[in-house]
Amino acid sequence: MDFAFDARTEELRAQLLEFMDSHIYPAEHVFEEQLAERENPWSAPPVVEDLKAEARRRGLWNLFLPGGAGASDAGGHGYGAGLTNLQYAPLAEITGRSPHLAPIALNCAAPDTGNMEVLAMFGTEQQRKQWLQPLLDGEIRSAFAMTEPEVASSDARNISTSIIRDGDEYVINGRKWYITGAMNPNCRIFIVMGKTDPSAEPHRQQSQVLVPRDTPGLTVKRGMKVFGYDDSSHGGHAEVVFDDVRVPAENLLVEEGAGFAIAQARLGPGRIHHCMRSIGIAERAIELMCRRTLARTAFGRPIAEQGVVQDWIAESRVRIEQLRTLVLKTAWLMDTVGNRGAHTEIQAIKIATPATVEWIVDKAIQAHGAGGLSQDFPLAEMWAGIRTLRFADGPDEVHKRSLAHRELKKYREAR
Amino acid sequence: MDFAFDARTEELRAQLLEFMDSHIYPAEHVFEEQLAERENPWSAPPVVEDLKAEARRRGLWNLFLPGGAGASDAGGHGYGAGLTNLQYAPLAEITGRSPHLAPIALNCAAPDTGNMEVLAMFGTEQQRKQWLQPLLDGEIRSAFAMTEPEVASSDARNISTSIIRDGDEYVINGRKWYITGAMNPNCRIFIVMGKTDPSAEPHRQQSQVLVPRDTPGLTVKRGMKVFGYDDSSHGGHAEVVFDDVRVPAENLLVEEGAGFAIAQARLGPGRIHHCMRSIGIAERAIELMCRRTLARTAFGRPIAEQGVVQDWIAESRVRIEQLRTLVLKTAWLMDTVGNRGAHTEIQAIKIATPATVEWIVDKAIQAHGAGGLSQDFPLAEMWAGIRTLRFADGPDEVHKRSLAHRELKKYREAR
Amino acid sequence: MDFAFDARTEELRAQLLEFMDSHIYPAEHVFEEQLAERENPWSAPPVVEDLKAEARRRGLWNLFLPGGAGASDAGGHGYGAGLTNLQYAPLAEITGRSPHLAPIALNCAAPDTGNMEVLAMFGTEQQRKQWLQPLLDGEIRSAFAMTEPEVASSDARNISTSIIRDGDEYVINGRKWYITGAMNPNCRIFIVMGKTDPSAEPHRQQSQVLVPRDTPGLTVKRGMKVFGYDDSSHGGHAEVVFDDVRVPAENLLVEEGAGFAIAQARLGPGRIHHCMRSIGIAERAIELMCRRTLARTAFGRPIAEQGVVQDWIAESRVRIEQLRTLVLKTAWLMDTVGNRGAHTEIQAIKIATPATVEWIVDKAIQAHGAGGLSQDFPLAEMWAGIRTLRFADGPDEVHKRSLAHRELKKYREAR
Amino acid sequence: MDFAFDARTEELRAQLLEFMDSHIYPAEHVFEEQLAERENPWSAPPVVEDLKAEARRRGLWNLFLPGGAGASDAGGHGYGAGLTNLQYAPLAEITGRSPHLAPIALNCAAPDTGNMEVLAMFGTEQQRKQWLQPLLDGEIRSAFAMTEPEVASSDARNISTSIIRDGDEYVINGRKWYITGAMNPNCRIFIVMGKTDPSAEPHRQQSQVLVPRDTPGLTVKRGMKVFGYDDSSHGGHAEVVFDDVRVPAENLLVEEGAGFAIAQARLGPGRIHHCMRSIGIAERAIELMCRRTLARTAFGRPIAEQGVVQDWIAESRVRIEQLRTLVLKTAWLMDTVGNRGAHTEIQAIKIATPATVEWIVDKAIQAHGAGGLSQDFPLAEMWAGIRTLRFADGPDEVHKRSLAHRELKKYREAR
Repeated sequence: MDFAFDARTEELRAQLLEFMDSHIYPAEHVFEEQLAERENPWSAPPVVEDLKAEARRRGLWNLFLPGGAGASDAGGHGYGAGLTNLQYAPLAEITGRSPHLAPIALNCAAPDTGNMEVLAMFGTEQQRKQWLQPLLDGEIRSAFAMTEPEVASSDARNISTSIIRDGDEYVINGRKWYITGAMNPNCRIFIVMGKTDPSAEPHRQQSQVLVPRDTPGLTVKRGMKVFGYDDSSHGGHAEVVFDDVRVPAENLLVEEGAGFAIAQARLGPGRIHHCMRSIGIAERAIELMCRRTLARTAFGRPIAEQGVVQDWIAESRVRIEQLRTLVLKTAWLMDTVGNRGAHTEIQAIKIATPATVEWIVDKAIQAHGAGGLSQDFPLAEMWAGIRTLRFADGPDEVHKRSLAHRELKKYREAR
Repeated sequence: MDFAFDARTEELRAQLLEFMDSHIYPAEHVFEEQLAERENPWSAPPVVEDLKAEARRRGLWNLFLPGGAGASDAGGHGYGAGLTNLQYAPLAEITGRSPHLAPIALNCAAPDTGNMEVLAMFGTEQQRKQWLQPLLDGEIRSAFAMTEPEVASSDARNISTSIIRDGDEYVINGRKWYITGAMNPNCRIFIVMGKTDPSAEPHRQQSQVLVPRDTPGLTVKRGMKVFGYDDSSHGGHAEVVFDDVRVPAENLLVEEGAGFAIAQARLGPGRIHHCMRSIGIAERAIELMCRRTLARTAFGRPIAEQGVVQDWIAESRVRIEQLRTLVLKTAWLMDTVGNRGAHTEIQAIKIATPATVEWIVDKAIQAHGAGGLSQDFPLAEMWAGIRTLRFADGPDEVHKRSLAHRELKKYREAR
Repeated sequence: MDFAFDARTEELRAQLLEFMDSHIYPAEHVFEEQLAERENPWSAPPVVEDLKAEARRRGLWNLFLPGGAGASDAGGHGYGAGLTNLQYAPLAEITGRSPHLAPIALNCAAPDTGNMEVLAMFGTEQQRKQWLQPLLDGEIRSAFAMTEPEVASSDARNISTSIIRDGDEYVINGRKWYITGAMNPNCRIFIVMGKTDPSAEPHRQQSQVLVPRDTPGLTVKRGMKVFGYDDSSHGGHAEVVFDDVRVPAENLLVEEGAGFAIAQARLGPGRIHHCMRSIGIAERAIELMCRRTLARTAFGRPIAEQGVVQDWIAESRVRIEQLRTLVLKTAWLMDTVGNRGAHTEIQAIKIATPATVEWIVDKAIQAHGAGGLSQDFPLAEMWAGIRTLRFADGPDEVHKRSLAHRELKKYREAR
Repeated sequence: MDFAFDARTEELRAQLLEFMDSHIYPAEHVFEEQLAERENPWSAPPVVEDLKAEARRRGLWNLFLPGGAGASDAGGHGYGAGLTNLQYAPLAEITGRSPHLAPIALNCAAPDTGNMEVLAMFGTEQQRKQWLQPLLDGEIRSAFAMTEPEVASSDARNISTSIIRDGDEYVINGRKWYITGAMNPNCRIFIVMGKTDPSAEPHRQQSQVLVPRDTPGLTVKRGMKVFGYDDSSHGGHAEVVFDDVRVPAENLLVEEGAGFAIAQARLGPGRIHHCMRSIGIAERAIELMCRRTLARTAFGRPIAEQGVVQDWIAESRVRIEQLRTLVLKTAWLMDTVGNRGAHTEIQAIKIATPATVEWIVDKAIQAHGAGGLSQDFPLAEMWAGIRTLRFADGPDEVHKRSLAHRELKKYREAR
């Protein structure tokens, strides 16, 4: 057992921290100004492309993707930077400190990361050439269309979008919402989850198909909001209607009935990334809370000297240290025993992260007074983003139920 | 001891409930549509004026203001509907069920209510004629400018805006923010809190002056956000700059040094109103949570049959019943022993209400899945509004400290 | 609506407060000393009888029992002090401040109170003469035997003790535990719940019979503990075995199948009493917390000046004021619309009281340092007693489920 | 970074798990029976000696003590099993599963462990020969006397026991309480903290001296309780009076003024041990909760199928995994950068452990119904033990304040 980062991680951390200081943090205000001046209210400000170019130049690019350029090992698929989950995790944390700029600058932003993983793992050569390569090059963006407004989508059996084979094509009908990134006109490709066979056993009913944005019948209808935010800087969260949308049969991923399994394969790394970035958010919130309460005075002394504020700061540190260590262990488990072997830990961090980070950011807001709610500090928007994680990839309640079943199973079998 | 409403309250409750069903709820969708079509992004949609006219016709008007038209009793000042706090409280709760429409329809919306109270209690005849009467008639709106961006405003001694006597005028310099309602161009009058004498004892340094919107030097600079909401339908929350703003000396309220006392007088009823409306919000959230979870199915049964969801519903009921009963008792205390005698209870409900209602609305959001975050349900916006109450009129932490001091004092003296 | 106590209540409160000061509090140390010197480790110390005599002399006796000596109204049955639940509630709170002495001194201690209620409401003349009268006179004590070690007793259908008719007798077989008071040799009569007809519909399977302590086959086996406490001063919590215990058929209460209904009738007033006494416990804990933290110094100032401690004190006040007001409203509802009409509120206070009071007593313990855990302060024992209320009369979880069902029913029917 | 145990740890874990199954768990009932039959109510039951002999035979002995028999490395002092903190931690967790038997069986029970560490690190050869050796051999037991009834002992400056040099002797006067283990007549040696120089700077006022139990003037007065438990099986928690107690000057540890530093040196490892054992307690509680809820039925299905119970089980798993990983990291830090370098993490686990484990054991109790409170299950006693950790070595509040100061210091310096 050893809790030190390895040399490769330390080296990349140092490079990334330098990049944050020299490029990312200084760009935050530019980004805000450019957001206000955009012509298309759903496009990314131009500073993002500058940052991407610089990050790529520095080799801080596609770090999330396992398997290096020359990798020939089982998990590797030759596209990524060759990092393990455990090596990437502390880098993802650092990008979380500037969540609107750093992940996209490194081409490590959701949902593209998950979509690239899926294409790298499951795409045909043609699919990878057509969609994976421009994603790896940061030229286009992508969306993953699963959640539906009409049903409780946490139960995959509820999915009602239909994908019907008709000759050499699949015909898609349905309505999706909260499709992150899809309002961005540069989001060119949708991976769509739907049902090919409602009569199959529950986890073989779904399939996934690739649907280019400009396919007739696909309408990106409106941006859904999150506590008033439209998240337009990273393509919003669209409601999308599929009305007799036809794609060639070769746009299917893997095979009919593989949709649920593909979705599962996508979740493990995605959760690690989300969790580590969220820890970075929490660290930034703690820093802001400390700085603000040291700088302001009430009732004759700095707010930082109030016992209740110190309690918040200490609790924040106590909670985030526990959480980070478990997330890192989970990354290690995924690397060593695989996603299935890390199932309990993946669910545990999926449940613990939003609860922990939401609490910390709430306290940082409270420590800021009214300013904490405002557009002048990143805290309120951070909070809203974290709050959505209690739903994303299924609500906490579903994961807790599943985790409890597994825990109880130990003793059920033992009887 | 008797927990039944009196006849007058029951009668008004019945009238108001009928008005909610016949006019307010049906107008909610109209309101949303008109919001999207406004020319001035900070003005109220026209349906609001229709509702005001109808409410006034029905006598559901200015119910918040104690002292009837012919009242000659001490507390009365001849303008209001003549209700006690205890009679008004359950009506305020009902308006909270549609928080963007019902309070304004009845001319019972903050911050006008507090401003009208102040003018009725402390205004000169000229001040009342010029500003109170059009407010009572719902013709104009008003703002209360206290919070400042540069200091922790919860400590009144920190207020840095200056109000300096210069001949027959006062000259005001300073910067305020989160001035609710001030983005609305029909907000015609500001009550401004500032310092006339920084060398006086702490609670005699402040004064309040009336500043008409179009006074030179007053700049309404921008709308501050609350999470991602601009709250434009009720005039937003403005940042306002006062740059050598000059008003006649007779615009002063009461006298120099009275600012803190006027602010305190304003808070008691204001808190009761906020608390009761918040309880109405919680009741609406519980209703939405029940309806949604009954209507949706996951894993083979309605979500309402999940044990955890039932726990949320039961806890919500348990908490809200406790809170409501204490708020009503507080209203009764204010009516019978006055604001000072009800100090502990007023602080208690100020602390308890946002914590309780925030928890309930959070659970209702969670029960809605992604929709709970969206613009298609009122829950996320309700949540953001309630969250601000943990700051409004001073953060919880300041009130708790004060309440604890009073509790400890019992035993300090006893020693 | 009126939150003032009526004249009768105020008068009794004054008398009771005087009795607490003059007799109860001074007896607390005597009680502790006598406990250590008892011959029978399960008997009450002699000071208890002195206090009972004095309370009775002062007319502070059997206050819990509705219906005065000459009462002829529906609810009254001619035995009690003639107080309503609303009148008795604030008196019960006061007795809670000295929970081991005051309730028993006034002959208002559980489980005798509930048993006397049941006998007054449902007993035959013979049963009342034989058992109710000596209970009213404080000459004997009694037990209610429902909970069983082998099953989850919160589901009444699980009860496995059998009560079988055999000629002119009933034969009882089964095992009960946590039978409060039964270790006291002066506990002369058991009301036993068991099944007379397992094939009847669920709520008609149970019956209740009176079983004198010295009936052959009844064995009081051992005292069950509560966090290390044996609660010997009020008769402990016994495990009791019924092995072919035979009682005359006329010992049945009401009729076969009435057991569940009798149990329900017993619960409403019992819960009000428990809740009000618990509030008295909380008030005593707050007082102890204030006194201790004012008296002790750490890091250069009284502990009472620590922000976190002030937060505890303020939160305690905020929570207890809400709870008390709802408990009083519940008492009023029971008096005016009956137990059934007050069902939601009775469950709400049953759920809220232990959660609230446990939290407060925990904070008072923490404020005392190690002493808070010890036998030198009443706090740890108070805490243990309150903790049991999360189970007593059914665990919180069962009550929440039932409360949620009722809440959901409003909307189920409305669809 | 690597989260796998090393080979030595795996080997010892296997041996210890085998010993738990073959000897410890089967002895639990024997232990309970022997407790009831003891002559001296404060002595350990004979089965404890049997287990000690067997453990020693198997080499499972003094595992807690760093530095092996032949160790010559910096940290080692030649007495222990030569394990690092990281190697010992998972073994301590396992012993926590049977907290009254396993730690003592392995001669790894507090407070002897800390006392042996202190003697090994700071004792003279004579002190080590006289007291350390019989402790290492498990022949005697020991106590650490620091907490005082009259002052808030969390502030070391408050300590009022005096240690005055008088010729070749030290004279000790004062009163201590909650001196764990001291009721056991075989507790032969006390390490006593007191003040030698009240005029020195705060952290140099205290000294520690060795006081044999039979020194005249030392009176072990009574056993303090924890909730209702006297913890007699491991020597209770004594109140001890020192009345002109005289010991030879060579009984001083290190030098005058070193008391605070010695106490600090003692705390790091002590906290790791407590935390890991507590995690073992939590794991046992989770197991009991699962087994009980699978075995009992209410309302037609096993209690384990209730959503709320599953929520408890899942939350327990989520929390304990985070906590354990951080405790292990803290052990690693202590081994690699020392106690001072691990200061934040040591405080973090000191704060997090009782909060987490108390919550889990509370839920396990609730899942057991009344039995959870009783002497028939270990849960209530486990809970009481864990509850004391929120005070032991200083209350949470003091540690949080200190931790917050360190966090704020980062930004204070940066300004």
